[in-house]
Amino acid sequence: MRVRSLRFGVVGTGLIGGSLLRRLVDTDIEVHGWDPDGETLEFAQRHALPVTGDLAEAVADRDIVILATPLSVLPHILERITDHIGPDTVITDVGSTKSGVAAAAAKSPLRDRFVPGHPMAGTEHSGLSAARAGLFDGATWVLCPDSVARIGHVRTLITVITTVFNARVTLMSPDRHDSTVALSSHVPHLLAGSLAGAARASGDEDAVLGLAAGSFTDGTRVAGTAPARTVDMLTANRDAVLAQLALVQNHLSDMAQALTADDARGLTALFAQARQVRTRLTTRADRPATHRFDPADPDGEFAFLMGTGAQGVGLTDCTVTDDAIVYSSLG
Amino acid sequence: MRVRSLRFGVVGTGLIGGSLLRRLVDTDIEVHGWDPDGETLEFAQRHALPVTGDLAEAVADRDIVILATPLSVLPHILERITDHIGPDTVITDVGSTKSGVAAAAAKSPLRDRFVPGHPMAGTEHSGLSAARAGLFDGATWVLCPDSVARIGHVRTLITVITTVFNARVTLMSPDRHDSTVALSSHVPHLLAGSLAGAARASGDEDAVLGLAAGSFTDGTRVAGTAPARTVDMLTANRDAVLAQLALVQNHLSDMAQALTADDARGLTALFAQARQVRTRLTTRADRPATHRFDPADPDGEFAFLMGTGAQGVGLTDCTVTDDAIVYSSLG
Repeated sequence: MRVRSLRFGVVGTGLIGGSLLRRLVDTDIEVHGWDPDGETLEFAQRHALPVTGDLAEAVADRDIVILATPLSVLPHILERITDHIGPDTVITDVGSTKSGVAAAAAKSPLRDRFVPGHPMAGTEHSGLSAARAGLFDGATWVLCPDSVARIGHVRTLITVITTVFNARVTLMSPDRHDSTVALSSHVPHLLAGSLAGAARASGDEDAVLGLAAGSFTDGTRVAGTAPARTVDMLTANRDAVLAQLALVQNHLSDMAQALTADDARGLTALFAQARQVRTRLTTRADRPATHRFDPADPDGEFAFLMGTGAQGVGLTDCTVTDDAIVYSSLG
Repeated sequence: MRVRSLRFGVVGTGLIGGSLLRRLVDTDIEVHGWDPDGETLEFAQRHALPVTGDLAEAVADRDIVILATPLSVLPHILERITDHIGPDTVITDVGSTKSGVAAAAAKSPLRDRFVPGHPMAGTEHSGLSAARAGLFDGATWVLCPDSVARIGHVRTLITVITTVFNARVTLMSPDRHDSTVALSSHVPHLLAGSLAGAARASGDEDAVLGLAAGSFTDGTRVAGTAPARTVDMLTANRDAVLAQLALVQNHLSDMAQALTADDARGLTALFAQARQVRTRLTTRADRPATHRFDPADPDGEFAFLMGTGAQGVGLTDCTVTDDAIVYSSLG
């Protein structure tokens, strides 16, 4: 596939959409952005970025359309673009939770062209003015296709994501995605918020801050995020967050119980297990591997792809020829 | 006071005691170290560090004796040194909890010379071989004197700690110390351990590590500490740790409840409060101030000193003349 000749549409040019747009512009790939916000359109014009206020124009005649609007308006946007989008266009999104998006897509006439996605990248800023072309370099980008029938679209997206955006692709079901990010990204915000909140509730906040050790500083870092943004994130993934938080709360109770009972052996065992997990996080090997598939066996290829998420494997390349489909991976 | 002419004894030359010893040696201040461990004595000899296996020799005829043994043997050591220590020697310790030490000291014949202390510094290593002269540079060093009768000893220690070890001194009662470090240093280890433990309990550890966001990486950092050391620390401060953990657990429950009820406003308010605390931690002003006291009013001076901990103020200098006692502070 000649990635450089693909034509892109980016729907919504905030931080994420704007960063996609900037990278595409920087690499001389044809792209139309769309945004409904007047200030954003003005900013784009001042900086010679191709952003229009006409949604039909942005998505018509495109090979790939990436939806980067807020999650709440995504179903509405899917409806609005339905009549303007070609039968061969590959559609994906960048929302931070995936079950809801997958359900909305399944009900849309565009379902045969849609592959839900989530690039795990961001900054504490927002808007097109904060967008940067390198935002996705080295990031993990999750794809959640619902059927082997989308294998061609998936190959195209993996190729684009790895070559244009320099990210790694990992695949899993929408439910597994939401459950995983609940623990790997969302629940830690609740812990940080509770630790910082407890410092105030202790009635001795100045003393606590005065004696803050590295453990407290690390443990409260994401409590510095804008509260509204944290709450949006948690609310959008509520059920999975509550389920994973319950696991953490159980662990805390077990530890408190062992400490209360002066059960040093039991407490040490709990911390030894935690340390194993931490060590695995910081010393993961990132072994390179290649995986070759027969174009006549899309089921085997699809099963491999959908298993990458559970294994923590990231795809770094996809090459399609008449004889074979070859993936490179790290993990 | 001529700090450079003071004679020191350091009892126990592990990481902390060894680092004290190294700084004193480096600044040409007379010091005797003591350690019961054969390998430590050998290491000291090979590196020309003044460490003896004779406890009486190490503490006799000293101006300042710093006890840096494990907390569990401190009462025993106090007994052993009683007959060898002079009436004008100032004694302090470096234990990470203070109520137990203060209680043991109160029962000792040495109580009129003893000021409990805790330099908040350390590394993940242990032993004399890991000691470094600069370990206390910029650290906060807590002192917990029990009476204005110790004001002279306190002045001496503040002068030594700020000028020789380059640390800041803050003062508070032993109970307040233990309660404060429970939250500012110990409880975060329970949170990190529980977050890492939950990743394993989720049954999807590889996926969670594969999608680990910065929030997860920060939130599990201290789970990498040696489990036995973490458990020793928590056990030594058990009651205060359990009390502060309960505050964090209450906050977690409140947040879970707000999320369950889709109470975005309530959840946002909780995160807004947490963010205020985090902002205060990272943007504390460190305003310089000086405080002048009449030598005839030790009660006022003592009250000021004991209030520094609650205010998060660190003393950086103490100058004693016939006319006045002057402290410099930041915070």
